Amino acid sequence: MTIERYESGKRLSQVLVNAGTVFVSGQIPADLTQDISGQTRQVLAQVDRLLALAGTDKSRILFANIWLRHGSDFDAMNAVWEAWVTPGHAPSRATIGSPLVGPDSLLIEIALQATA
Amino acid sequence: MTIERYESGKRLSQVLVNAGTVFVSGQIPADLTQDISGQTRQVLAQVDRLLALAGTDKSRILFANIWLRHGSDFDAMNAVWEAWVTPGHAPSRATIGSPLVGPDSLLIEIALQATA
Amino acid sequence: MTIERYESGKRLSQVLVNAGTVFVSGQIPADLTQDISGQTRQVLAQVDRLLALAGTDKSRILFANIWLRHGSDFDAMNAVWEAWVTPGHAPSRATIGSPLVGPDSLLIEIALQATA
Repeated sequence: MTIERYESGKRLSQVLVNAGTVFVSGQIPADLTQDISGQTRQVLAQVDRLLALAGTDKSRILFANIWLRHGSDFDAMNAVWEAWVTPGHAPSRATIGSPLVGPDSLLIEIALQATA
Repeated sequence: MTIERYESGKRLSQVLVNAGTVFVSGQIPADLTQDISGQTRQVLAQVDRLLALAGTDKSRILFANIWLRHGSDFDAMNAVWEAWVTPGHAPSRATIGSPLVGPDSLLIEIALQATA
Repeated sequence: MTIERYESGKRLSQVLVNAGTVFVSGQIPADLTQDISGQTRQVLAQVDRLLALAGTDKSRILFANIWLRHGSDFDAMNAVWEAWVTPGHAPSRATIGSPLVGPDSLLIEIALQATA
């Protein structure tokens, strides 16, 4: 079975597809001056773009791992998340606090699995 | 291939099944007045219940991600965990420290994958 | 479908294979006196060994979860990681800060999925 990789470098592939399962690497926002709402929107827009590379979309996410620097950002993140999720197609999910790798202004990272 | 979702809302599905793989969302205890032993038991009881919804059980877990607020709870968590695991059917696992999203009294969260 | 387990005990299986997917439990270094470069090399050597048990290798990793105690170790970890990854076969990946379970001298843990 051939593994397909997209936006692949020496370190990682942003998207990898194997046997119909799509893995999206941990995504962080580009503009860290935004608050948690803006940073969540940025990350989800990247997720949409990367899922499209693999020929799938957010209605077919299996599991999402969301890491938050501040647990107090949970409600604001969820407001953006819930507006983004395809109704009736919510994935399984875990949201975990983490001292994210990056500057203190980096508030969120998301990695996920989807099906093609 | 149809994705099946159980206890599914706007935000997440507590269980999602795709192509024979079962994803259980991050589970936390309901009663946070209990110590790590009690909280672990609560989470594992929810896991049992959610796996049953998908027609599977703990003997068929593939990978479990366990997050602990306090690394010092590792041994007490493991005592409950090892009494719960089906002998000869231990899953792969990672146990990670995390400032969990929730009150300081929330001590543990577990998410996992199983096979149907 | 039969699940295969390697180095399996009461608590966990270091490697588990189901339907062609290989799960490697969270690996930590044995010698915690080494710096992040040495600890990363130790973990990746264990990963190589465990993948071989399942009849696969690092060129077929699907997703790797890397946890770092100190975000400041990111560049040094990546230097070892990039020298190890099979060129053209980089997996998807997420690198997350974590107060790892263990002594303060434990700097890194890695868990991953591969295909057989």
